[in-house]
Amino acid sequence: MANQFYSPRDLRFHLYEVLDAERLTQFAYFQDHDRESFDLVLDAAGQISETLLKPLLTAMDRNEPELVDGTIRVHPLLRSIIRRFGEDGWINAPFGYEEGGQQLPATIMNAATFVFGAANYSASVFPFLTTGAANLLRSFGSPELIERFTPPMYAGRWQGTMALTEPDAGSSLSDISTSAEPASEPDMDATGAYRIRGQKIYISAGDHDAVENVVHLMLARIKGGPAGAKGISLFAVPRQRPVGDTLIDNDVLTAGVYHKMGYKGAPIAHLMAGSNDGTIGYLVGEPHQGLRYMFQMMNEARVGVGMNAVSIGTAAYYASLEYARERPQGRHVADKNPSLPQTPIIRHADVKRMLLFQKAVLEGSLGLLLFCSYLSDVAHAAEGDQKADAALLLDLLTPVAKSYPSEMGTLTTSAAVQILGGAGYTTDFPVEQFYREARIHPIHEGTTGIHGLDLLGRKVTMQQGRALQLLRTEIQSTLTSASHYPELMPLADQLTAALGVLDDVTKHLLGLSPTDTEAFLSDATLYLELFGIVTISWQWLRQAIVATAASNQNDLPGGRDDAAFYQGKRMAARYFFEYELVKIYGLAKRLCSNDRVTIAMQSEWF
Amino acid sequence: MANQFYSPRDLRFHLYEVLDAERLTQFAYFQDHDRESFDLVLDAAGQISETLLKPLLTAMDRNEPELVDGTIRVHPLLRSIIRRFGEDGWINAPFGYEEGGQQLPATIMNAATFVFGAANYSASVFPFLTTGAANLLRSFGSPELIERFTPPMYAGRWQGTMALTEPDAGSSLSDISTSAEPASEPDMDATGAYRIRGQKIYISAGDHDAVENVVHLMLARIKGGPAGAKGISLFAVPRQRPVGDTLIDNDVLTAGVYHKMGYKGAPIAHLMAGSNDGTIGYLVGEPHQGLRYMFQMMNEARVGVGMNAVSIGTAAYYASLEYARERPQGRHVADKNPSLPQTPIIRHADVKRMLLFQKAVLEGSLGLLLFCSYLSDVAHAAEGDQKADAALLLDLLTPVAKSYPSEMGTLTTSAAVQILGGAGYTTDFPVEQFYREARIHPIHEGTTGIHGLDLLGRKVTMQQGRALQLLRTEIQSTLTSASHYPELMPLADQLTAALGVLDDVTKHLLGLSPTDTEAFLSDATLYLELFGIVTISWQWLRQAIVATAASNQNDLPGGRDDAAFYQGKRMAARYFFEYELVKIYGLAKRLCSNDRVTIAMQSEWF
Repeated sequence: MANQFYSPRDLRFHLYEVLDAERLTQFAYFQDHDRESFDLVLDAAGQISETLLKPLLTAMDRNEPELVDGTIRVHPLLRSIIRRFGEDGWINAPFGYEEGGQQLPATIMNAATFVFGAANYSASVFPFLTTGAANLLRSFGSPELIERFTPPMYAGRWQGTMALTEPDAGSSLSDISTSAEPASEPDMDATGAYRIRGQKIYISAGDHDAVENVVHLMLARIKGGPAGAKGISLFAVPRQRPVGDTLIDNDVLTAGVYHKMGYKGAPIAHLMAGSNDGTIGYLVGEPHQGLRYMFQMMNEARVGVGMNAVSIGTAAYYASLEYARERPQGRHVADKNPSLPQTPIIRHADVKRMLLFQKAVLEGSLGLLLFCSYLSDVAHAAEGDQKADAALLLDLLTPVAKSYPSEMGTLTTSAAVQILGGAGYTTDFPVEQFYREARIHPIHEGTTGIHGLDLLGRKVTMQQGRALQLLRTEIQSTLTSASHYPELMPLADQLTAALGVLDDVTKHLLGLSPTDTEAFLSDATLYLELFGIVTISWQWLRQAIVATAASNQNDLPGGRDDAAFYQGKRMAARYFFEYELVKIYGLAKRLCSNDRVTIAMQSEWF
Repeated sequence: MANQFYSPRDLRFHLYEVLDAERLTQFAYFQDHDRESFDLVLDAAGQISETLLKPLLTAMDRNEPELVDGTIRVHPLLRSIIRRFGEDGWINAPFGYEEGGQQLPATIMNAATFVFGAANYSASVFPFLTTGAANLLRSFGSPELIERFTPPMYAGRWQGTMALTEPDAGSSLSDISTSAEPASEPDMDATGAYRIRGQKIYISAGDHDAVENVVHLMLARIKGGPAGAKGISLFAVPRQRPVGDTLIDNDVLTAGVYHKMGYKGAPIAHLMAGSNDGTIGYLVGEPHQGLRYMFQMMNEARVGVGMNAVSIGTAAYYASLEYARERPQGRHVADKNPSLPQTPIIRHADVKRMLLFQKAVLEGSLGLLLFCSYLSDVAHAAEGDQKADAALLLDLLTPVAKSYPSEMGTLTTSAAVQILGGAGYTTDFPVEQFYREARIHPIHEGTTGIHGLDLLGRKVTMQQGRALQLLRTEIQSTLTSASHYPELMPLADQLTAALGVLDDVTKHLLGLSPTDTEAFLSDATLYLELFGIVTISWQWLRQAIVATAASNQNDLPGGRDDAAFYQGKRMAARYFFEYELVKIYGLAKRLCSNDRVTIAMQSEWF
C-alpha cells in the first residue's frame, strides 16, 4: 500500500501562495478566521484521513454493501466514522454560527474534501452528501423542517441524500414522474405534508445501517401542476418520519443496492416510495420550484465531483510515483551495459512523462477547483458587482471544473496503472481500484455530454457573453503578471495563441447557433474539452508565476525541499504546455469543420 | 445482456471485399482452401462462441480462479471447452497436415480468434496460449520433444504457456535469472535435460485444473553462459514430466494466483521451479538462442493481443449500440417540447459521436490486424522478394497493430460505459466488465512504451528505412485507387497531408538519433500514437474505397441491408478523418519541439 496519498505542501501552495486565501478573512462572514485556523482545519483533515479513512480503503472495496432484510449493510466502522465527522463539526462547517456551523470558507472546506477523497473516496461521500441535503433544507425549508431535520444530520446520526434520478428520468430531469398529493399529517402539517409515490434509482447513500435515519431531498411532481421542468417540486422525505418524540416507518422501501465497478464502499440504492400509500414528504420552499432550488446547490456539488476526481487521481499519482522510485527495471537508454545494476524506472523518460502527465493534469485541476471554491466564497460573502461577477464566472467555470478533472481522471489513473505494469493490473496494488473508482465521475452529477451542452448552449452565451469576458479579463491579468518573467514568455505566448483559438472556435460555433441548433451543439463535448485545456493552461501559468518568483529568491524558507518543489512546478507547467495544450489544435480543426458526420449518421447504418 | 457481440457481415467485408483473402489459396500451402472452407471456419467460430463461450462471460468474471491445495481451480466448464477446441482442431489449425493441422491461413484463424475474444476473452485465451507454445516447440524443438509434448497439447488435454517474466525481469527480459544446469535424465536425455531453478510471475494459464498437464515454454539462463540477452535459452518445462507411459511430478509449484482488475476468468500464476531441486526442463533448439526464438513468435502473439483488444471493444460497442437504440431519454435538440415522448438516445448527436468513435477505431483496427495477418500468411507461403517484403512490412506494423488497438480499446470501452451512463457503471450490464478487461492490453506482451521504442528505435530504421518505404508504397497505391472516386478526394488529400506530417516528424527525430539517443527516443510513445493514427486512416481509406464502389452499384446482393452497411462504412471513414486524424497535428507539434522537459525532470522534483 502506498504511503503518501496527497501533498500537504502542494495544498498550501495553492491556498496561500497562488490564491491568497487569507484575503477571504477580510469579508465579515469569514472575519473570525485566519491562516492559523485554516491550517488547523487542514491538519485535522489530514489526521482523520490518515487514521480513520485510509485504513479502510481496500476493505470497503472488497466487502461491498449488501441488502439484508430490507436495509443495506455497509462496513461496520462507518457508523463511528460518520459520527466522528458530525462531532468534529465537518458536516455543517460552512454554515452560519446560528446553525452551529463555523462559517468556514468553501475554499478551505473543499481543500479538506480533497484530502478525505484522496484517502478513501467511498468513505468520504457519506458526510458530505448530508451537508448538501442539509444545505437545501436550511436554504429553502420552513423553520419547523429545519429544526426537526437538520440537528441529527449535523450530528452524523441521520444521512442526507439527493433523490433525483428515476428509471425514466436520468439526464432528462424534466421527465420525473414521482407524484405528490397534499395529505393531512397531524404531527407536522404546518410544514406542508404530501403523500409521495414513485421510484428513485442510483441514490447515493440512499439507505444504510450506519445511521439511524435517512432524509431524502426528493424531486416530485405535485398532481395537477404544469408539465415538464416547471412542475417539479422539492420534498424532504425521511425513511422514518418523526411523530412526537419517536420515529415511525415512512414506507420508503429499499428495492435494491447496485453493484458497481468501483466506488463500492458507498451504497447506491434503488428506492420505492409509497408502495403501501404510507410515504409522507414535506414540501421544501414553494411548489414547482424544485429544479430551481436543486440547481442552486448543483454548482457546489459539481465542483465537489471535480474535486473527488482529483482526489482519486492524486492518490493514484503518489502510488505510482512511489513505485517508480523503487522499482528497478532496465537500464538508462544512454548506457545499456547489462553488467550494470538495473535502474529505478523513474529514470526512464517515458515513465517521467507519465508521472508529469498526472502531476500536470491533477495539480492544474486542483488549482482550478480551489479557484472556483474561492469564487463561491466571494459570491457568498461579497456585495454588489464583486459578488455578481464572482457568481457569474463560477457559473461559467462549473461545467469545466466538473468535467475536465473527471474525464482526465480516467486517463491519469490509467497512467498510474501503466507505470506499475503487470503489478498495476493486480489487486496487490491500489492503482487498479483508483482506475475503477475514477470512472464514475464523468457520469454522475451530469454526464460530460450534459456539461458540454451547459457550457456552450447556456453559459457562454448568458448575459451576452459577459461571463466569458470576465474569464478573458482574468487570463489577461495573469498574462500581464507573467510578462515580468522572461522565462515565462514562451508559456505566455502559447496561452495568448490558445485564447485566440478558443475565441475563433467560439465565434464559429455561435455563428451556427441562430440557424442550426443541432450543428451548433453537436460537438459541445469537444468544445468543453478545448475550453478545459485552455483553462488549465491558464491555471498553470498562475502557478508558474509563483514558482518562478519563489525560485528567484535566495533564501527559501523550506530550503532545498522548497527549491525542489518549485522546480517541479515549473517543469509541470512546461509539460502541460508542451504535451496537453497542443491538443487544442486538432480539436479546433474539427470544431471549425463543416462536415456534419455525427448528425448525418443514422441508427440503422451502425 | 447484449445479444450481438460482433458483426459477421463486417468480418466478411474485411476478409473478402477489402483484403480479398481468397488470393491466399493461390499459394501451394493454402491451396486446398477456398471461400467455402473459410466460411465454414468462421461459422463454426460463431457457433461455438454463441453456445459455449458467451454464456460463461459473466460467471467467469464473478467467480475468480482460486488456489486450492496447490492447484488453481477454474470454472468447471472450462475443461470441456478446452477439449472441444482440441477436438474441433482449433489448437493446431494453422499447422501443417503432417502435424495433424489444417494449414489454415493466419488471416482466417485470427478472424476466428476475434470472434472468440468478443464472446468471452478470458475463455478464449486457454487454447491459443497452447497454440503459441506448441508453435515454439514444433519450430525449434527436437523430434522427440515434439512427439512427446505436442499431441496432448493439440488435443486440449495439456495447456501450453509462455513463461518469460520474473520478479526482477519484466520489460527487461535480458535480466532473467532462472537458471539451468545439465542434468542426466534417463528417460528423455536425448532431448537435452537441464535442472531448472527460478521463479516466474504473471504466467497466463500457468496452472489450472481444466487440463491434465501444463507445458511451460520457459526462458532460463544456462550456467556459465554469456550475460544479458545473449545468454538466455528456451526450455520446455512441464508441470508433470513424462517418464515411460506415466507422468511424474516435476517440482513446478504454484506459489499463487494473481487477483486482477479484469480478465478474471483466466488464471495468472506465480510459479516456482526447482524449489526441491526436482525440476527438469528440456532445451528447445540451440543454447543461448532463447530470446531469438521467442521473438520470432512474438509478432504473432502481439498481433493476437491487438486482436483481443478489438474483440473486447467490439463486444462493448454492440452492447452500447443496443442500449442506445432502446433507451429513451430526453428529446431531440431541435424539438424539446416536453409533451412529446422521449427519444431513443441514439438520436442525440453526442451519442452518435461516441458510437462512431467506437466503430471507427475498432473496424479500422480490425482492418489493420487482418492486413497484418495476411502479411504473415504471405511471409509464410510466398517466396523471394514477396516473402521478404511481407515479413519486413509486418515487422514494422506489429508494434502499431499491438498498441493502437490496445490503447484505444481502453477509450472505446470507456465510451461504451458513458453511453449507458449510470447503468454502465453497474454490474447489471456487461460494459463495465469490458472496460476492466480492456485495460490489460496496453500492458501484456510488451507495454506501449516498449513498443514505441521498438517502432522508432528499431523498426523505422531497419534496412535503411526500407520497411517504412514499403508502407509508403502501399499507402500510395491506396491513394491512387481513391482518386477514381471524387467523394473520396477530401479523405485522400487529408491522408496525403498526414503522410507528409509523419515524414517530417520521422526526419526530425532521426536527425536527433546520432547525437542524442535519449532525446531521439524520449517521446517514442507519442510517435507510436501518431504512426497508429496515420495507419488507421489509411485502413479507413481502403474500406471507404470498397464501400463507395459498392454504394455506386445499382443492385447490391444484400439489398437495403447492404446499402445501410456501406453507408455506415462511409460515415465511419469520414468520422475517423474528421475526429481522429486531426489529433496528429498536436502530436507533431510536440514531437518536433526541442523542449526536453521529460528528460530534464528529476525524481526529487516530483
